[in-house]
Amino acid sequence: METVSGKRTSSDLEIAEMLSQQDGDMVQTHGMIYSIKDMGDFGFVTLRKRNGIVQCVWNKDTCNCDIKSLGVEYSVRVKGSLKKDDRAPNGLEIHLTEVEVLTTPKEAPGINLSKRKLGVTLEKNMELRPITLRNVRERAIFKLQEGVVKGFRDYLMSQGFTEIHTPKIVASGAEGGANIFKMDYFGRKAYLAQSPQFYKQTMVGVFEKVFEVAPVFRAEKHNTTRHLNEYMGLDLEMGFIDSFTDVMEAETGAIKNIIKTLNEEYARELKILNVTLPEVDEIPCVRFKDAKEMVAAEYGRKIKDPYDLEPEEEQLISKLFKEKYNSEFVFVTHYPVKKRPFYAMDDPEDPKYTLSFDLLFRGMEVTTGGQRIHDYDMQVEKMIAKGLNPEDFTDFLMIHKHGMPPHGGLGMGLERFCMKLMDESNVRVASLFPRDLSRLTP
Amino acid sequence: METVSGKRTSSDLEIAEMLSQQDGDMVQTHGMIYSIKDMGDFGFVTLRKRNGIVQCVWNKDTCNCDIKSLGVEYSVRVKGSLKKDDRAPNGLEIHLTEVEVLTTPKEAPGINLSKRKLGVTLEKNMELRPITLRNVRERAIFKLQEGVVKGFRDYLMSQGFTEIHTPKIVASGAEGGANIFKMDYFGRKAYLAQSPQFYKQTMVGVFEKVFEVAPVFRAEKHNTTRHLNEYMGLDLEMGFIDSFTDVMEAETGAIKNIIKTLNEEYARELKILNVTLPEVDEIPCVRFKDAKEMVAAEYGRKIKDPYDLEPEEEQLISKLFKEKYNSEFVFVTHYPVKKRPFYAMDDPEDPKYTLSFDLLFRGMEVTTGGQRIHDYDMQVEKMIAKGLNPEDFTDFLMIHKHGMPPHGGLGMGLERFCMKLMDESNVRVASLFPRDLSRLTP
Repeated sequence: METVSGKRTSSDLEIAEMLSQQDGDMVQTHGMIYSIKDMGDFGFVTLRKRNGIVQCVWNKDTCNCDIKSLGVEYSVRVKGSLKKDDRAPNGLEIHLTEVEVLTTPKEAPGINLSKRKLGVTLEKNMELRPITLRNVRERAIFKLQEGVVKGFRDYLMSQGFTEIHTPKIVASGAEGGANIFKMDYFGRKAYLAQSPQFYKQTMVGVFEKVFEVAPVFRAEKHNTTRHLNEYMGLDLEMGFIDSFTDVMEAETGAIKNIIKTLNEEYARELKILNVTLPEVDEIPCVRFKDAKEMVAAEYGRKIKDPYDLEPEEEQLISKLFKEKYNSEFVFVTHYPVKKRPFYAMDDPEDPKYTLSFDLLFRGMEVTTGGQRIHDYDMQVEKMIAKGLNPEDFTDFLMIHKHGMPPHGGLGMGLERFCMKLMDESNVRVASLFPRDLSRLTP
Repeated sequence: METVSGKRTSSDLEIAEMLSQQDGDMVQTHGMIYSIKDMGDFGFVTLRKRNGIVQCVWNKDTCNCDIKSLGVEYSVRVKGSLKKDDRAPNGLEIHLTEVEVLTTPKEAPGINLSKRKLGVTLEKNMELRPITLRNVRERAIFKLQEGVVKGFRDYLMSQGFTEIHTPKIVASGAEGGANIFKMDYFGRKAYLAQSPQFYKQTMVGVFEKVFEVAPVFRAEKHNTTRHLNEYMGLDLEMGFIDSFTDVMEAETGAIKNIIKTLNEEYARELKILNVTLPEVDEIPCVRFKDAKEMVAAEYGRKIKDPYDLEPEEEQLISKLFKEKYNSEFVFVTHYPVKKRPFYAMDDPEDPKYTLSFDLLFRGMEVTTGGQRIHDYDMQVEKMIAKGLNPEDFTDFLMIHKHGMPPHGGLGMGLERFCMKLMDESNVRVASLFPRDLSRLTP
């Protein structure tokens, strides 16, 4: 009887394992050929491994294969003697004795994947995405993204939050408006979830503190550098809050842990991408109304839209708080009722505003959050005031009817957060396979 | 300037924190009232906290509030003196001195949420899901589910896998067939991803080893106890494999770590749910053809469908391997080409079969996996043989054209795995808000 027991099957070494060997030891590893430099009797073959580049030195007298028989994107297994060298990528070289070709491509890619920066247009990059992601700089973005999610998740778990998975096919939208994708569900009209809002609030009644990392779908018809039609939402929701400041504290804790995680576990990617992480000690808070006025005064602007922040205002608020308080983050609080959804709790001290916030990071909103209505009558009343029919929300209102603690939460856009982390100017670079008005492939 | 710094804001204690206090200490905590027993001059109020029940003893002479003013699902903050008692839930009682009511429901739920088992029909349970999940046994299922995901993820990260997030709105289906949800994408025809298949294979060329935990959508029209139309897929894909056994080894390692995680960190839920975890040392492997014949011989069955396993055959194979090899898991390998998708690699030794497997767990398939085709010509040829047009798969074929290592992977259904873990008979109990033929809400 053949069995499997979860053991390691390969004797190919990882980079870290080779680094723990001695100079001159024979090592075996695998990789995809990233670049070849053929100088006649000798040459260099660099391998792309999952977490770094390894330089192999080829010499016609000592290696069993002809360098001319190799090509980029070949998958190979190699053997050779180890030489540690601080100048080489990842501190080592392999002096090849054997190369076994595992697979060969049909055609070489039309672009040089091993350049430090790809140097293609965004359009071209997106079109050739399955291949361009193999560039070491391109892929580092998504390793860093993994670290952001890890830092977020680890922190929340350490604080007693429960990870949940809620449906993406839904019967009604949580955020209102026309930006919702429609679909047919066995003859019934259905939608793709614009956010896990109803479900995460529901789960506060169950687990008190919950979070979800999942795709979010927005049928926004504008083509901008900061919108995606499908993105990853980092959502949390928490009960028994004293005010929405508790939610901002939770986010600040999560962001501090994201930065700590990146510093400790993703140093390689930070270096490849030349990322300067923000320092986060205390994040300043400013009221929406005050922020608008401060920026108008400081930079001589006219306030055009009193109910929302224009992108340029977000940039200027960030600039001002960076200059005055040396903070790359700023919480803008108390948004107008008019611009917040029906589940947002109004400020009892001034019911034109809500107990809500956005987090700006380096000039852009990366999070929206706030306290939610927990009282049944108050929620029904606000639905009606917003022109909605409470009968369309019977399932959601079940939680208010049967009791909810005071609660609040937030949603952060992963790609947008990563974009600002890397000081990139287009959110698409932080999405593996972006979905926008014109892109449904690859 | 108001600021937030990520600090803890509440002085309410968690259960573990109360347990580290001394008998007689004054403690403060919060919760939702789970049950009330009013015996006149004294009584019991149990609180549902995020991770357990706390029993509070009310006495009219020592508490500032009247027990008659309280009700189930009220959110409260309480103070009182701590008394440790091994017979009480979680080993402690609070002798109340103060109760502050934070929120009150509009109506009490129509069912008793605090019963050990809810005792309602599945239909009723699903209909009242936002509330029934508050039952301590119901919610334990999803805490356990969190542990399954954690065990899976932690193991793969420890093995150098990268977590990825791939689009769910796609231009073509990966699994073929009619069971795909259609949608409109700005005037173009689009679909909901039946699996992350194309993308995870693509990402093997980038990161070598990847995994994803994300929703998967299947428009299956049959209403069974084992199908959901939206479920959570635990997917992995890995390069540089020597054979598909490497993939089974990875899965076995992940399952061992899931069980270890549940044992070490989810003991409370295992107890509430009375779960007996499977013991996993070595998982036996049997060829599809042999498994069918063994079961036919052992249980006197006729083989009706030579190309697939019937649900009853899955049960009998599991029964046989439990009896003969004391294993609750069994890998069934080498499925017929006819029943496997176009990306599956054929067995070079017998091209009627594929280098693929299913994992059966307690009588049910919980995973499908195998080696994939990496060669461009072979993939194009198999598409044509399967009646597909390679031109419809240009983006996917880009990776074969420009080089892929030998690779394979698998997809596990989270809800189905949890269902079998708990020996439940309907997969819906392991989904927070199930989507099936008739259910689009709550």
